[in-house]
Formats: sequence, structure tokens, C-alpha cells
Amino acid sequence: MLKIGIIGAAGLSGRELLYWLKRHPKVTVELLTSSKYQGQKVSDVFPELNGYAQVFQPNEIDVSGCDLVFLAIPNQASLELVPKLLKQGTRVIDLSGAFRLRDTEVFSKFYQLSHTAPELLEETAFGLPEFFKEKISAARLVANPGCYSTGALLGILPLKDLLAKLDRAPIIDAKSGVSGAGGRVEGDTTNYVSVNENFKAYKIFAHQHQPEIQQYLGDLSPYQTGVLGEVIFTPHLLPLNRGILSTIYLHFSEPIAADEIRGRFSKFAEGQKFVHFMEEGCLPDLKVTQNSNRVMIGAESDDSGQNWVVVTSLDNLVKGASGQAIQNMNLMFGLDETLGLL
Amino acid sequence: MLKIGIIGAAGLSGRELLYWLKRHPKVTVELLTSSKYQGQKVSDVFPELNGYAQVFQPNEIDVSGCDLVFLAIPNQASLELVPKLLKQGTRVIDLSGAFRLRDTEVFSKFYQLSHTAPELLEETAFGLPEFFKEKISAARLVANPGCYSTGALLGILPLKDLLAKLDRAPIIDAKSGVSGAGGRVEGDTTNYVSVNENFKAYKIFAHQHQPEIQQYLGDLSPYQTGVLGEVIFTPHLLPLNRGILSTIYLHFSEPIAADEIRGRFSKFAEGQKFVHFMEEGCLPDLKVTQNSNRVMIGAESDDSGQNWVVVTSLDNLVKGASGQAIQNMNLMFGLDETLGLL
Amino acid sequence: MLKIGIIGAAGLSGRELLYWLKRHPKVTVELLTSSKYQGQKVSDVFPELNGYAQVFQPNEIDVSGCDLVFLAIPNQASLELVPKLLKQGTRVIDLSGAFRLRDTEVFSKFYQLSHTAPELLEETAFGLPEFFKEKISAARLVANPGCYSTGALLGILPLKDLLAKLDRAPIIDAKSGVSGAGGRVEGDTTNYVSVNENFKAYKIFAHQHQPEIQQYLGDLSPYQTGVLGEVIFTPHLLPLNRGILSTIYLHFSEPIAADEIRGRFSKFAEGQKFVHFMEEGCLPDLKVTQNSNRVMIGAESDDSGQNWVVVTSLDNLVKGASGQAIQNMNLMFGLDETLGLL
Amino acid sequence: MLKIGIIGAAGLSGRELLYWLKRHPKVTVELLTSSKYQGQKVSDVFPELNGYAQVFQPNEIDVSGCDLVFLAIPNQASLELVPKLLKQGTRVIDLSGAFRLRDTEVFSKFYQLSHTAPELLEETAFGLPEFFKEKISAARLVANPGCYSTGALLGILPLKDLLAKLDRAPIIDAKSGVSGAGGRVEGDTTNYVSVNENFKAYKIFAHQHQPEIQQYLGDLSPYQTGVLGEVIFTPHLLPLNRGILSTIYLHFSEPIAADEIRGRFSKFAEGQKFVHFMEEGCLPDLKVTQNSNRVMIGAESDDSGQNWVVVTSLDNLVKGASGQAIQNMNLMFGLDETLGLL
Repeated sequence: MLKIGIIGAAGLSGRELLYWLKRHPKVTVELLTSSKYQGQKVSDVFPELNGYAQVFQPNEIDVSGCDLVFLAIPNQASLELVPKLLKQGTRVIDLSGAFRLRDTEVFSKFYQLSHTAPELLEETAFGLPEFFKEKISAARLVANPGCYSTGALLGILPLKDLLAKLDRAPIIDAKSGVSGAGGRVEGDTTNYVSVNENFKAYKIFAHQHQPEIQQYLGDLSPYQTGVLGEVIFTPHLLPLNRGILSTIYLHFSEPIAADEIRGRFSKFAEGQKFVHFMEEGCLPDLKVTQNSNRVMIGAESDDSGQNWVVVTSLDNLVKGASGQAIQNMNLMFGLDETLGLL
Repeated sequence: MLKIGIIGAAGLSGRELLYWLKRHPKVTVELLTSSKYQGQKVSDVFPELNGYAQVFQPNEIDVSGCDLVFLAIPNQASLELVPKLLKQGTRVIDLSGAFRLRDTEVFSKFYQLSHTAPELLEETAFGLPEFFKEKISAARLVANPGCYSTGALLGILPLKDLLAKLDRAPIIDAKSGVSGAGGRVEGDTTNYVSVNENFKAYKIFAHQHQPEIQQYLGDLSPYQTGVLGEVIFTPHLLPLNRGILSTIYLHFSEPIAADEIRGRFSKFAEGQKFVHFMEEGCLPDLKVTQNSNRVMIGAESDDSGQNWVVVTSLDNLVKGASGQAIQNMNLMFGLDETLGLL
Repeated sequence: MLKIGIIGAAGLSGRELLYWLKRHPKVTVELLTSSKYQGQKVSDVFPELNGYAQVFQPNEIDVSGCDLVFLAIPNQASLELVPKLLKQGTRVIDLSGAFRLRDTEVFSKFYQLSHTAPELLEETAFGLPEFFKEKISAARLVANPGCYSTGALLGILPLKDLLAKLDRAPIIDAKSGVSGAGGRVEGDTTNYVSVNENFKAYKIFAHQHQPEIQQYLGDLSPYQTGVLGEVIFTPHLLPLNRGILSTIYLHFSEPIAADEIRGRFSKFAEGQKFVHFMEEGCLPDLKVTQNSNRVMIGAESDDSGQNWVVVTSLDNLVKGASGQAIQNMNLMFGLDETLGLL
Repeated sequence: MLKIGIIGAAGLSGRELLYWLKRHPKVTVELLTSSKYQGQKVSDVFPELNGYAQVFQPNEIDVSGCDLVFLAIPNQASLELVPKLLKQGTRVIDLSGAFRLRDTEVFSKFYQLSHTAPELLEETAFGLPEFFKEKISAARLVANPGCYSTGALLGILPLKDLLAKLDRAPIIDAKSGVSGAGGRVEGDTTNYVSVNENFKAYKIFAHQHQPEIQQYLGDLSPYQTGVLGEVIFTPHLLPLNRGILSTIYLHFSEPIAADEIRGRFSKFAEGQKFVHFMEEGCLPDLKVTQNSNRVMIGAESDDSGQNWVVVTSLDNLVKGASGQAIQNMNLMFGLDETLGLL
């Protein structure tokens, strides 16, 4: 049995890790921490998670007995903690954004933080298993992808051979439930009466997942920002708990046959455990992925065949965070990629 | 034109006062305050309230130029401010709970506060216009009723002549939208993901509106706590923005004819501007009162005629708070009771 | 492996059966029917249920190859189909209300239907495993309880030895999400704009679960309707998808010590797999039972100890319908009661 | 007083007309019809609309005593009724899509209907007062714009002089509450459990408001579909009652200074009664326009100044339907454009 630690187990991602790990047949949660609830029993804070007898520990606990530690804490806390954990020889999956961007200047601009461990960036695996399986398997440190980035990259990268034919930057109009856009952090943004019966765009041209999407598009496809400019990414806040729907606009310099587009998505999905491409005429809504680790994808074109709209759906707390982290854990320890997940 | 001040104009009740007063033909809002937003323009904080050119002032401002001041601030702040305002000669409508209970020991128990102005309690008018019109008209200080109390009292008191036939304490099972149960105060209670797709009871046998309901039932009806015990009141939190539905259980020692019950409610409603009693077979939902100052009431009995269920619906921010406050203002200044309201 | 058939597999309860049975290690879904979707693939109608390769069959299909058939169809359809299935030798769990009430006159009154198979009522097991385990295990026909009845009975019956001390009929003020109160049936009642931001009571003194609660209270406890009258039950419609919270008011003729009440609930819960009694000062909300087969219960009294409020929470589609049905199936076939459930 | 008739007064748009007209100082609602509720009192069907003593009439009623008739009925019904009404000499505001498109082939394609009154299309005024005030004032027949079209056109047309510099078709990613996307029509699409906690795109490249947007862009701006192709329009369904937020992507062939963009919007807004352009750094959410006839607009660019995102917010039932219809009525009868509206 793998011995697991969770730092920040009482936030939304941490709680979601607890939910899934409880059913994982090869894992025991050895310790879990929470600054807010330290000293309280898990089952008192989350009565729905019956079966955890543990007590929340302080975040500063010694994790050296763990095979793997999940970090579900703010960016700055991860930045400080990761180097210490790696020195102790513990493998780490970091759910924050601290180790996703290679360019520390871009990191500073979007995260308003100086990067204090740039020496780790090269070896860090980006935890998108559909594209980085090998590096993840061998990694000491996995940077779990942003929820929006997962939805955008899995909607574009299956077409990577065709991206050279794009004549405009893709536009990603993304809509997230509250748990993917601030979560349980207190504040006006996530207050019930502010969100309910409301909808808004936020952080236009300024969201930290935009450079993340851009970087991995550049790494994995012939996409040239020099020619097309950067991808345009607009996040919105939906009045619901969980789920991200991304509407992605692609414009090609020539018509692309439906078979070509659909064929590439289908073939890609066949090789993956959690990616499903929907039949012609079908587009995913949020229901089809809620409470699962699946990504579901649909695509439609106009009559010209030059304009394509790709729609991706995922659960931001599962495939967009904790489920994907467990998928990465499975790979890191040679387990079946799907173990413990749905 | 009446010159009005609002202390605490950026909270939910304060904002609602602004919404309605903007359309009131006999009122100018002379000044408005907010500790959180002081210095900011009203129209920047609430873009939907276009038309207010004012800037939020600090709460400590001099209000001596106002004919009337609404207080939409926490209990303790009201407790401290009211005596000062009255000394200046300003009339006050207090939307907090500070001056509703006559018994200062009960007040201490339910509000966890010592009452520092007990000398004002006797002269304070309880701002339920359906029962205290005269006292309100002449009052220097009106204690605007609690939202739950309004829904409970208007569902029971129209039957006051029959209450001597009750053989059990009424049970009031009340359900409130978020703005009536904590509002925009930050915290787990009103966080979106905590409230959405959820429902719960809270403060069972401990809510501060229970003694308020009890006191005015005792004042206005033959209801005897010595015999029946106190009313039982259970508030619940609904996943919606506004509205309170109260399901009130009455058990009489003998059958009461439907005509008697319905007749009393109908007659009562006829004499009131904002009370509507629904036809037989109809019960109000929340939609029928949202964004209006109305209370709507329905009643049904079982075959025995001894068990009656009364359902009342109101908008907690309007008839349960700011609308009722404006209704009281109209009475205090000799205006038509309905002016500026729907 | 048990061979299972589901008649009416595309309704809300049917779909929920599919969701849970997919993970059940001892079951294969042999056939499933839907009048609306017959001929369509399960995975096309419910993309989230990937893994079902089947096609919906017409309701009139031959089920003789099945060890057990679940009926998730309207009352009248169950009434007609059950006798035929039993004659074929198939065991049946009926999720409708057709076989829950022993008194066919009461049945006619509340269901507006004549009972055409009264000869089966005596042998039918009421599928509340916490009280009828033995009869369920041996039954040919299990009448799966109503969702409201489950929440009410599990909040009252653990106190059955104390019910002789009640001096009033219990009042059950119940609130259900939309899937428990009409579900996906088309109509004004379940239309989005009618339900969202709204709340209402319905079928006061007229809901078909009232006599169901009454019957089993009478069977299993010393409760006397001759003295106290019938339980009072008021259902309400919550603007959310799933969950039932029942607020139950009990008044005893003498004070009952907290230890007595809490002790009885705790002892009862210890003997059950899916019943949890919460610690003092805690009451369940809906979140703690959503997507699980659990019932969670809390209780509080006033200072007198004569008034008790019991709050129960369950997921109407799981413990209130399909999860409980699977729990019953497990018992009928000698499997671990918890198999396939959470 | 204007004498008004409303055909289809019990649908969502019809009910909204009733809500606003009740407060309109120069109007009496002479008659109102509903096929579903004919013979019932308005105040029984909509208890919240107290004050209407009328009874719903059948749709086939004689309206010759009315100065103006609003049609809030399906497209085909409007198509049939409008010519008859005009022949009687009644002026008409049609809230359906029947008379918005000049090209009857395009109409047939998007509405699956043959146009049976093409002779009326030339004289029909498109009821977008911000651009067609004169024609509306004189019109016998006003085609009230689609809700999506209103949000799109008011977000693009204020920049009309700059549209020659576009080098790509605008992309309009629009999100509507349920009342704007099917409303109270029964069916899976608007069923509570299908919509709640869900979100989806629909009718991609196939929504009937796309050609409407395209037609009026072409009429009023130098936009050339021959060069850029048609605007791309994707509607989505939000889990909330009312509101449309449109995120509009514009790409210019050269950088456009913020002052130029903002200046054009500001100047445009100044000349209009219901259009507000937000300060730099501010974007509208849905709350700022709900229950009002306002459109609120914000705009942001990336660093290059070539990519602009315009966000518009409106209430689909008010500015997107019934409020705009009343604004048109005011113009048609020489009244202040804002009368009866907020």
C-alpha cells in the first residue's frame, strides 16, 4: 500500500482527494493537514467522509514516512514547501500553479510572486497524462495542470498536426463553476448572493492559465505565436458548484473535412482512458462529466469548413484537479492509470 | 421632500433601501454611509443603481440635517448610535434587533449583548404597521421587525380571537433565502459552494426571532405561555437569494370551521395595504411576493378541522426589512402608507 | 452473477439504478427498458453512463431470464405488471407506491386508483431494511419505500419505546429536491423557471406518503392514532436536484433526558450499515448524504426536554429510492448489505 | 390613455409586458389573451400581478378597439395574425421572429417556415430604438429584436466606423438564462433537473439570431461578409432565470487606441436612454441589468490593442423582449421613450 500525505486536505481540492482516495485500493492516507481545522477530526469537519478516523495535522508536519505527498495549498506555500519535501526524498504532486510555467518572468507577471525555486522547473513533469505519461512516471515533482488549461489543451492538442493550418489565434471562451474559480475562499467573489442568478467574465487577458495553455501548445504543436499571436482566453464564473465548459474557436486557412477533424479526435480518444469524443451532432454539457475524471469533447463546423468550434467538458475538481492528480499518482507508482477513478 | 440618511447603506438591507427610495416621490437621500466602501461612488459599487451621484460617507457622519435616519448596521452598532441620534432630534428607524425585545435579560441571552439603552425600550414602536400603526406614526424610534417575525406574526395574529382555543404551542417551520439568513457577511455560512444544492436547519430553539414572535403574540392575543409553552420556531436556509416561507402548525382543542378561519384572514387582509389572503385551495410560493412589499397567506385544514396549516410568504429584504421600513417611514411622516412601494 | 432487469430504466430512479449497478461486483444488467427511448443506446441517452453497451428495450419485453426485476415505472403500470412477473417466477423490487399500503381504500383515496392485486399485499415486504430485514430476504415482492417515508420513519422509529409518551401527533415538515417531487416529468411543476429561486408547500394533508408513514409507525411502535390522531406531514419543493431534509417535531408528556433520546438513536445506528447519528450540537444538512445511501440524523431539545426536534437527511434518489432498492436486492440474494453502495 | 391588447399574455414575455404596463401611466391594458388560461383571471394565474381584474380571453378575439397590439406568440402564429391585424388598422409590435429577416430564404432555413407575408417586410421597422428611432415612430408594424441580437448589436454597432478595420469576423459567445432560451415551454430542455447545475452550448452555427445579427450589421456598418465571412454566434444555456451576457471578440488589422474604442462607446451611450458604458477596468455582470431595460457594456483589449473583448449584459425579458417592446410603443405614440421603464 502506498503511503500518502495531503497538505491542505480541507480545501476544495484536498477534500476531493480524500473523497477519491478513500476508495483507492492501493493507498492509505497516512496523514493529512489543515491550518484551519488542525486538531479536528476529518469526520467532524466533513461528515460525508465517514471512514476517515484521522485528525487534521498542522501543515508543518513531518511527511518523511510518506511515499507521496499531494500539495493542495496556495501558490506561495507550495513554492516554499516543495524544495524541502524533495530534499527529504518524498515525491510530490503539486496542485498549485507554482511549478507549471518555465518562464519565471511570465510567472512573476501572472502570479505576482518571485519564483524561488527555478532550478526545479526543468525536471518538473506537467501532469497532463495524455501528453506527458513517461515524464510523469519518472518524476519526483509533478505540477498538476490548471483546470482551465486541461480543458483547453485537450480540446486543441488532439488536432496538433492541423494547427499549422490555423490562420488566427484560437479563442477559448471558458466557463467555470465556483469551485474552479475561487472555491471556498471567503470573499465577495464566492459569496452566495453575489454568484447566484449571476454570471460574469473575469480576468480578461490576465488569467494565469493563459500562459500555461500557451506554453504547452507551443511545446507540443507547430503553433507559432510569432505569426498568430497568443491564444485568447476568457474565463467566466458560472452559478453552479462544479464543472468547466470551454468553447474553443478555431479558424483554418483552408476548409478541413469533418472526417479529418473527427478522425483525429476519435483516434486520440481511443488511446486514452479518460477522454471521450462525442458522436457527430452531439456536444457535451457539464452533466456528462460531473463527479468523474472524464473529459468529453464535441466539435462542429460551419458550412465553409474553415470555422470549427470545439467544446470540452470536465469536472474542475476531478479531471481539473484531484482526479488528475490521482491519475498522475497511479502513473508515478506503476499502477493502472484508472485505479480508484471513474 | 423628506431628507433621509442611511447608515450602513451598502449592506443588503441598505442597498435595498436605496433601490426603493430612488423611486419614492417624496424623499431625497441626503447622505448614506458605509464603512467598507466609504469614499467610493454609489454607482461604482452598485452599477445597477444608476442615478445615485453620491459617495459613501463614513458611518460617523453628522446626520443632523436629516428628517429621518435608517440604521442598517449590526445590533451593537445600533445600540450605541440610536441614543445619540435621538438626542440630536433625528427620528430613527432601526433595522437591527437592538430595540425589539422589552426584556433585557432575554435580549442578553439571544443577542449575547448587554442592553445599554433600556430606557428607550418603552417608547420604541415595533414597526409592524398592521398592528402598531398609531404608535409608529408618533414614534421617535421604530424598531423594524425581524424578517422571520413578520412572516410568523402575520400568519397567526389575524386569528387572535381564536388563539384561546389553541391547545398546543404553534410550531413555525420557517425557510429563508440567503439574504435573510446572514446575507453578504463573509464566511462559510454564506459561501456559494456551502449553500448551493444544500439545505439545513440552524439555531434550533436558539434563534433571536423566537422571543420576538413570542413577545408580540403575548401582547396582542390571549396566547398563554404558562399553559401552552412558548412557540416553537425552526429557521432553515434555502439555496436562493430572497424570500421567506413560513409553515405554521396550529392545533385547536375543537374543530374550527373553514369559514371562521378564512373569514378572519380575509377581513384582516381587506383592512391592510400589503396583506393578501389567497383563495381556498391556494397557497403562496415565494415567487408571488418577491420584489414586492406584499405578504401572501394561505391556510388549509385536515378533515378534523382541528389541525390547521398556515403558510405565509414574503420577501425578506422588502416586507421583511427595507420595504417595511419605508412603509413605517410613510406612516411617521403622514404619507400614504403605500408610497414608493409595490 | 445475478441477472438483473430494469423496467423503466430511463427515468430518474431507473438512471440512478444504472449508475450504481454498473459498479456492483455481483450483478449484470441483463436488460433494460424505456418506452421513451426504446431502440436507442444507453450511452447515447446518458453519455455519462459510458460502459453500458445495451439498447433500451420496449417495456413489454420478456424478463424470464432475469433473477430479479426492478420496476421504476408509474403506480398503475406496476400494479398491472407485478402479478405477471411473479407468475413467471421472477422476484421483483417495485419502486412505485403500488404495493406499500395494506388498506386498499386508503390506497384508492391517495392514489386515485383501484387496487387490482390486493391478494399480493400480505406477502409483500416493505423494503425498509432497518426494520424488515428478514421478510425482505425471503420476499418474492419488495415494495421499496417512498422517499419521504424513509426519512420520516428513520427519524421516529429508533425512539419507538418512547413513543407511548408522546402526547401529540408528530409533525413532519419535509423538504425535497426536484428529483424527489416529480422529477423529469414534464410540466409546470418541474419547469426550471417555476422552481428556480422559488419554494413552496404542496399536497398539504393529501400526500400519499402520509398514510405510508402512519401505517408502519402503527405496525412497529405503540403509537395510537385513536389517541393522538394521525401524523401531520407537509412536503415542500426545494430548488435543488437531490436530497430530502425532514424536520420532525415530537412533544412528550414528560421531559425526556437527552441521554435517553441520544442513546436510543446511537444504539440503533450502531446496528445499521447506512444510518448515522450525529454528535450533540450537530444536525445534518443535505450535503452530508448526497450521492450516498446514508441517512444522517440529529436531534435537539428545548430546555424543558419535552419538545424534541429530529432532523433527518437522505438522498431521495439513493436511500430514498434506487440505493435502498439495491440494499434490498443484496438482502434478497444473501449478499453483503452494503455491496455496490457507498 | 393608450388602449393596449396583448395576444399571448401568459407566456414569459407576455407576463413581463403585464408587469411593466401595470405601472405605465399612459396605458390601459384593454384585453389580454391566452390559449392555455382562457377564462381564468389574471390574478389567479399570476397572484403576484395583483391589480389586474381581467380574465384571459381566447387568442382569436377581436382587437379592433385597441390602439396597439403586442404579439407574444410563436413565430407561425404571428405570421398568420399580423396581416389581419394590420388590415383592421391596428398597429402591432411583434415579439416573435416572424418579421425580422428580409431574406425569406434565410427565414425558411432558420425558422423551418415559409414566409406567408413577404409584402410586409419592407415596411416593418426593426425595433432597436438605438438605431431605428424614426422608422419605429412611424411604423404600423415593429419587429421587436431577438434577445441575443440586441446584446450583440449594441456591443458592436457603436464601433461601426471602426468595423472596416476588422480583419476577422466577430465572434459572439453568448450565454442566456432559461427564460431567454426556451422559457416555460415544456420539455427536457427547460426541465429543472436538466438545467440546474448544468451548462451547455446549443444550436452552434444554426441559431436563428445569427442571420438577424448579420443582416443589421450589414445594414448599419461597413462590415463585409464577402471579405470576413459571417459573424460567428454561439448561444449557451445558463442555469439562472434571466439575463444574457455576450462576450464579443473583435480583431482589428491594426492597433486601436483604448481612447478610440472607449470614446465611441461613451459617446454612443450618452445619446441613449438605456445604454450605459462602464468605466475602464469594469465589465458588467448580469446583476447590473436584471429587472431593468438597461444594456451595460464594458470593453478590454490585450497589450497589442488589436484584440478587443466587448461584454454586454441585458435582461432578456426586459431589454431583450418586453421592455424594449414598451420602449418601441413609447416611440410609436410620441411618448417619452423611458416612460414606465427603469
